Amino acid sequence: MSKKYNFYAGPAILPHEVMKKAQDELLDYKGIGLSIMEISHRSKDFDEVMVAAETKIRALLGVPENYSVLFLQGGATTQFGMIPMNLLKDGKADYVNTGAWAKKAIKEAKLFGTVNIAGSSEDSNFSYIPKNLNLSSDAAYLHVISNETIGGIQWQNFPDTGSVPLIADMSSDIFSRELDISKFGLIYAGAQKNMGPAGVTLVIIRNDLVENSADNLTSMLSYKVQVEKKSVLNTPPCFAIYIVKLVMEWLEQNGGISAIEATNKEKAKLLYEAIDNYPMYKGTANVEDRSKMNVTFRLTSEELASKFIKEATATGLIGLKGHRSVGGCRASIYNAMPVTGVKELVKFMEKFEQENG
Amino acid sequence: MSKKYNFYAGPAILPHEVMKKAQDELLDYKGIGLSIMEISHRSKDFDEVMVAAETKIRALLGVPENYSVLFLQGGATTQFGMIPMNLLKDGKADYVNTGAWAKKAIKEAKLFGTVNIAGSSEDSNFSYIPKNLNLSSDAAYLHVISNETIGGIQWQNFPDTGSVPLIADMSSDIFSRELDISKFGLIYAGAQKNMGPAGVTLVIIRNDLVENSADNLTSMLSYKVQVEKKSVLNTPPCFAIYIVKLVMEWLEQNGGISAIEATNKEKAKLLYEAIDNYPMYKGTANVEDRSKMNVTFRLTSEELASKFIKEATATGLIGLKGHRSVGGCRASIYNAMPVTGVKELVKFMEKFEQENG
Repeated sequence: MSKKYNFYAGPAILPHEVMKKAQDELLDYKGIGLSIMEISHRSKDFDEVMVAAETKIRALLGVPENYSVLFLQGGATTQFGMIPMNLLKDGKADYVNTGAWAKKAIKEAKLFGTVNIAGSSEDSNFSYIPKNLNLSSDAAYLHVISNETIGGIQWQNFPDTGSVPLIADMSSDIFSRELDISKFGLIYAGAQKNMGPAGVTLVIIRNDLVENSADNLTSMLSYKVQVEKKSVLNTPPCFAIYIVKLVMEWLEQNGGISAIEATNKEKAKLLYEAIDNYPMYKGTANVEDRSKMNVTFRLTSEELASKFIKEATATGLIGLKGHRSVGGCRASIYNAMPVTGVKELVKFMEKFEQENG
Repeated sequence: MSKKYNFYAGPAILPHEVMKKAQDELLDYKGIGLSIMEISHRSKDFDEVMVAAETKIRALLGVPENYSVLFLQGGATTQFGMIPMNLLKDGKADYVNTGAWAKKAIKEAKLFGTVNIAGSSEDSNFSYIPKNLNLSSDAAYLHVISNETIGGIQWQNFPDTGSVPLIADMSSDIFSRELDISKFGLIYAGAQKNMGPAGVTLVIIRNDLVENSADNLTSMLSYKVQVEKKSVLNTPPCFAIYIVKLVMEWLEQNGGISAIEATNKEKAKLLYEAIDNYPMYKGTANVEDRSKMNVTFRLTSEELASKFIKEATATGLIGLKGHRSVGGCRASIYNAMPVTGVKELVKFMEKFEQENG
């Protein structure tokens, strides 16, 4: 195998067609004699990119009209602060603690109000999604992490929150499966898993939440200002947004979200079957909560896991080391990971089992 | 002339050698089989890029050891908020009002303390740099905009602030001239003029200011946290930082800051001489405060200016329309604008004068 496959948790690989097009256009965007990163963010050419990116996102995800789509900076970590800053306003919010990302979001929220931990799987090192939530009827919102990259767990169905807005960090699984956006008050995602390069953050927010958000925030951190300025309060990360647009085109051309969801299910099935079928491997996540994006597993010993990772790397399967808090291995199989990449990994797992089992 | 020259105020053109190298490496960074934007920000390959970018910036600008170099997100506008949030702490700060950018910085600072306007050129539509400043001995800092892109004015010498930290937004002239960093407490710059693509912000901050900065801020907005985490609290804008590194290499290979400063002086001289020599053109900035980055001028009427811009565009000289608040024309001639581009513009000005004078 000469081709390499990157199973890192992120930044992830991008579709080859996208990278090829970006390369072709890098010095001369549509015959203007300049790169897309060398022109004004208020020029007609770049404005078309922004509009197309938003239009495609709206179409792919079925975003209702009463939601705004924002392209911000600073990743999900900035949203961990912006959300309570704008929406908590010294009130109370419910958070579900499903792992490292949820803990970071909770830490930031505590600066701006009261946090009620509505559920937690910390007792089992975040190997499952809590089921019976202790929700507050007066919460400003319920915050969940759609998919935890470290524990390898994913909400298969989102909780019903009634009139309380549901907020989800979808950094690691946006565009991987069909969603009913109308069930959410706000979703957000750093680009670098399923959307584009690091440096742009997608925020989809229901307009009544924008209207009721806090005043007197610095402009960059105010949803009101960002919505009013249509994400161009200042120079946006133009090149990253351009790549997002290309990724959305790639999704469209490949059948949209339903098609990529089917492929993602197929990839996850192949890997989890290998884990379940070969005695050497053991999945770390609760079976019904298993992530289709980050597949976590251990070998019979950490020494064997090290050997597995080393030999996999040598054969071109890179980034398989699990997060230190879980150990073992992790295969991140985001949208751009082709089925062939997963098949190569499964083949390697089989071979390694035979040689070391 | 078949080649196009972009005189937009930003995002600006990047050196051709940089864009060419980025294109060559886009699908396969140093033989790893992946793009630099497709690998983990904690991988060895990307870490080398970060370290090299910082090392080169330190060498080019002569950054003393007691300063930290940060790669953040959100542009200068985010710093307009972060600076008072971290350093003003309900105290008083001096700001010089030199134009649109200064006004934005002042507006954000007022959310976090008392702002003393130490000088202003608003009385003349920001056509000069205020000279006799009303500085406060107890100010947390003095804030200036090194170069105002709209009015086309630039600090030629920075004020002596004694023990009060001097803070400068250098978004539009960083790396264009030699600096004595030790005279500043903090300098910052969005990348998209002289440094790289939009999406990364350089902050150079003296460590005692970091130590004395506010606590209880959200992580992304805390200088303490960002310095402690060496700009990788979360995924940084990897591709933008990679381009910054390439631009720094280009600066090194072309003689460093002193050489680019000489070229910038030559370009500005050519343009201002044309403005002063041909009766049709009139510079809008006070002569001694003229910017070497953004050259602003009017024609004898706004109708003639429109004709000038239209014909210039047709011949490949684009982005010459002045900001609506000043009118007339503006030629932004950042580091990557070659002398030949400026000569083409001067040639066009001469021809236009002959045909319409």
